[in-house]
Amino acid sequence: MHDFDQTYLDSASLENGGSAATGREGVSPAVIKRLPRYYRYLRELIRQDKLRISSRELSQMMNVTASQIRQDFNCFGGFGQQGYGYNVKYLYVKISEILGVNRHFRAIIVGAGNLGRALGRNPMFAKRGVVPTAMFDVNPDLIGQTVGDLPVLSIDELEAYLAEHHTDIAVLTLPKEVAAEAALRLARAGVKGLWNFTGRELMLDEFDVCIENVHLGDSLMTLCYELNLM
Amino acid sequence: MHDFDQTYLDSASLENGGSAATGREGVSPAVIKRLPRYYRYLRELIRQDKLRISSRELSQMMNVTASQIRQDFNCFGGFGQQGYGYNVKYLYVKISEILGVNRHFRAIIVGAGNLGRALGRNPMFAKRGVVPTAMFDVNPDLIGQTVGDLPVLSIDELEAYLAEHHTDIAVLTLPKEVAAEAALRLARAGVKGLWNFTGRELMLDEFDVCIENVHLGDSLMTLCYELNLM
Repeated sequence: MHDFDQTYLDSASLENGGSAATGREGVSPAVIKRLPRYYRYLRELIRQDKLRISSRELSQMMNVTASQIRQDFNCFGGFGQQGYGYNVKYLYVKISEILGVNRHFRAIIVGAGNLGRALGRNPMFAKRGVVPTAMFDVNPDLIGQTVGDLPVLSIDELEAYLAEHHTDIAVLTLPKEVAAEAALRLARAGVKGLWNFTGRELMLDEFDVCIENVHLGDSLMTLCYELNLM
Repeated sequence: MHDFDQTYLDSASLENGGSAATGREGVSPAVIKRLPRYYRYLRELIRQDKLRISSRELSQMMNVTASQIRQDFNCFGGFGQQGYGYNVKYLYVKISEILGVNRHFRAIIVGAGNLGRALGRNPMFAKRGVVPTAMFDVNPDLIGQTVGDLPVLSIDELEAYLAEHHTDIAVLTLPKEVAAEAALRLARAGVKGLWNFTGRELMLDEFDVCIENVHLGDSLMTLCYELNLM
């Protein structure tokens, strides 16, 4: 991990009192979907010690138009492009704030099967400021193990754990047949974000919960569609 | 696995001579992205022995408008809605053909780390007609193992393997630092589809290759963005 994350983000939070959620009501989902990609490219630029970048340079790197980039950034006030382009660190800090990287959301992984364990060891969380704290499963052979740094706890302990450990995100990597029940338990226990790998789409209209569904199979099928056209 | 897949798809292929790629030049990427979701819901309806479904019923299940569904299906000739809705099996067969499920694309997994092994054991491939045949890695401790049914071979054997075993898709689950080199080797050896989990976006303009990038971190960040607004 690179220490620059914490240094930049903490200083930025202090400057503006830690508040980032201002003036973003009208931002379209398409723009929001593109923000994490900007975040990735800006991390790479910082790693390369690049201090400033023009929208034209960024557009060539990312293979989108410079006009698109300016439009996207204007949704958030424009990030102060002047003279020769954007200040890379400032842009990185601002986009990190918008994405909540400096919030250090805490996560649990529900389902310690192959995918859950692969995610539990994945540096992706740390790179995005998310802190996994534990995994849960029903399998007695897995309970008591650790995966990376994460203890695997019994699903029976879920509510007790959540009552003691503030948790923002639950990563659902359990079988789809039990996805809805687990989601309900998590929502009732106050978890506000579900990252859902189960393949079962979840409806929790009665709760104020954000759900992000990951359908890996859909992505595979999109590739197959393209191959089928060749 | 359910045998209905093969029975339906083989009979459909015979009917129209196996060709599915007709009249689809103008279909928008947004429509294509929605097809795998229709595929999932239709599988579920078949499992429930549902024979016919109206666009209104399907729209309620899927939480999209009936008009959207009809517009999407009209891109492919409409799938013969008449009287009370669509014939579920016919719709499933037609969408399967468009997505190439009946092509039985053959895949290798390049990178036998945590994510590669989790994917290697995942039923997702079989459910979508894709046949994984082998995994590749550089790690001598992994080479010679089997993951599920898949042998883990040395990356040094990659070209020799591909020369002997027709392979449509390579799943890239190796470190991002070596992603570009591996992609180039695969493209040179004639692999036409790359399913890229490395987090490094790949450019292979000089080859006729389809690339589907999966950025799990971007999906996590989208969830964090929503949580940050709460």
